Amino acid sequence: MSHVPSETTVGVVGGGQLGRMLGEAAAPLGVELVVSDPTPDAPAAPVVREQVVGDFDDEETVRALAERADCLTYEIELADPDTLERVGEETGTPVHPHPETLRLIQDKLVQKRRLREAGVPVPAFRGVDSVEQLRGTLDDLGYPAMLKAREGGYDGRGNVLVESPDEIESAFEAVDGPAMVEECVPYDRELAVIGCAGADEQETFPVTETVHEAEILRQTVSPARTDRATRERARSVATDVLDALSGRGVYGIELFEVDGEILFNEVAPRPHNSGHWTIEGCHTSQFEQHLRGVLGLPLGRTDRRGPTASANILGDVEHRQPASLSGLAEALATDNLALHWYGKHEVYRLRKMGHVTLVGDSEPTALLDRVGAAVDRLSF
Amino acid sequence: MSHVPSETTVGVVGGGQLGRMLGEAAAPLGVELVVSDPTPDAPAAPVVREQVVGDFDDEETVRALAERADCLTYEIELADPDTLERVGEETGTPVHPHPETLRLIQDKLVQKRRLREAGVPVPAFRGVDSVEQLRGTLDDLGYPAMLKAREGGYDGRGNVLVESPDEIESAFEAVDGPAMVEECVPYDRELAVIGCAGADEQETFPVTETVHEAEILRQTVSPARTDRATRERARSVATDVLDALSGRGVYGIELFEVDGEILFNEVAPRPHNSGHWTIEGCHTSQFEQHLRGVLGLPLGRTDRRGPTASANILGDVEHRQPASLSGLAEALATDNLALHWYGKHEVYRLRKMGHVTLVGDSEPTALLDRVGAAVDRLSF
Repeated sequence: MSHVPSETTVGVVGGGQLGRMLGEAAAPLGVELVVSDPTPDAPAAPVVREQVVGDFDDEETVRALAERADCLTYEIELADPDTLERVGEETGTPVHPHPETLRLIQDKLVQKRRLREAGVPVPAFRGVDSVEQLRGTLDDLGYPAMLKAREGGYDGRGNVLVESPDEIESAFEAVDGPAMVEECVPYDRELAVIGCAGADEQETFPVTETVHEAEILRQTVSPARTDRATRERARSVATDVLDALSGRGVYGIELFEVDGEILFNEVAPRPHNSGHWTIEGCHTSQFEQHLRGVLGLPLGRTDRRGPTASANILGDVEHRQPASLSGLAEALATDNLALHWYGKHEVYRLRKMGHVTLVGDSEPTALLDRVGAAVDRLSF
Repeated sequence: MSHVPSETTVGVVGGGQLGRMLGEAAAPLGVELVVSDPTPDAPAAPVVREQVVGDFDDEETVRALAERADCLTYEIELADPDTLERVGEETGTPVHPHPETLRLIQDKLVQKRRLREAGVPVPAFRGVDSVEQLRGTLDDLGYPAMLKAREGGYDGRGNVLVESPDEIESAFEAVDGPAMVEECVPYDRELAVIGCAGADEQETFPVTETVHEAEILRQTVSPARTDRATRERARSVATDVLDALSGRGVYGIELFEVDGEILFNEVAPRPHNSGHWTIEGCHTSQFEQHLRGVLGLPLGRTDRRGPTASANILGDVEHRQPASLSGLAEALATDNLALHWYGKHEVYRLRKMGHVTLVGDSEPTALLDRVGAAVDRLSF
């Protein structure tokens, strides 16, 4: 499709921080967004043309988006591929990435099988439907291993570490549904690559090192603190992942680095927390790239402007309460620090409330220290 | 004031492209904007919390902003300093830059006198109230000279070039009101500096070279194509201009370079077209800096990321018509090109509809050629 500014509307299922940052990227391009989210005044609402209030899988809601949009996309895996596919067909609205890709990715077991079939290196894994099967599989894979709900998990939810046979029953109970189990690879670090598929081209962004704590992303730095050959291998695996999936748009591809080798962890068919640094750190951000991709515009250059680190602002409170951040003036006194506030009205423990980014000339570790120090000045 | 994200609202008189780009800068900072503009669905409307529809000088409109805002500012010189001052005092809402500064700047004669008194170098000028006085002044200043309406002119409107005594009467008639006349300095180039006053600090951005045609800004490039000493002198004059004005926020300062010397042309108490390149070209944009300034937050670093050029997308049609831009996909295929669309629904001849920016490693002239070529692909 050809994009005419002010006449192009993209409908987005999901109006969280990813929708908000898509909205921030859309306005300069002359693209208008309408988003849907069940929470009134969702994070994206103030920066987009309109929010439709409705559940991610509600057909009437998706139809309301489609009727206003030239193209549909989603910023959350809880979007429903069947609804998207049906509404897209009925209204003649293209959906990107393809609902089939969303369906495939939603089931972590199917996702991993597909990528293994495509020749992408993955850790050992098996589907497990019962406690007995899990026990038998772990006799084979060894301990510790990660039991994962096949569907619905994110930010570590739905994942249970199984360290010994004693934990098998409670782990299976905790996951409570169709599961897969995967060897815990002794990785040296976690890496991520944002990939993008356009109308007839592909791009990958520079490799990011991600630092998790309790399975929640805390910090990222690019370039990753590994050697050039490993970074190139990571980008090459990411390209193989893109090749195995269909549908335009941005994909967040998470990887393990193990002894210089790259193993695929998982992929999200949307902009990803590991790519937030691209807003300041690259000539084109992952959000602009997603819009260029889904609209079939030429993809932008993904060069890094300079070494870049980011850190999430996470809820540091015990109980859900109104979000009132203090310490911001002190943090903003950090040279080159950029703030991204997500506009969430309430904070709870470990909720992602915003992030900060630093582009600088320093070594990656020094940059991480500086973003870490800036975030430490903030509290709710 | 201390800034608490999601709890800070800035009221902006004016909802044009400057308000829109302020809105784009506000969301990541967790600042919400309410803007006022007489045109429904003004350019800023889709990206800010709310637009109040009303004239720039309408007291009820300004009061509606003040009642919702922690601080008032303006993005257009047509804002009314008396109204701002009165409403600010009545509602206890600070106004930045100070209404007194707006009042001073609105009258080009008063503005120039004040800056001359402050020791800022300016071209020769005089106030003129009659044809006879103009004739007498030009006997003295010589021809050609620029006759300027003291109030209300912009983008060259209100300015009339007087090349010979024969043109005096028609020029005075065209300006139609209080006027000043100024020698036409034989400048080598036009320069601009974005300055910003914060709570207790000042910053200036790197010097920009501006390229006008028929008195409308077409392109900018930074660094300016002049020597380092001249650039430093320009920045120093800009600092003197900031010192002479009161009130926080960003100022667009236009200068002439004449034989290596710097003469002050004029100043706008708001973000300025000559600083749009800072969105991509600097660590902090002029729009974020304005918000930091008016809110009393620490000012951001103004370093340039790399040589940067921008070009305005101007209406190329003869008559007012719906704005439908074509050629965008071709333009977006230019490496590193960033688009900024202003969301105006109608286009007319020379109307500013958007701009493009390129950050690159090239020489300034090569960068200007590239943005020029990109803009040439666009038409309405």
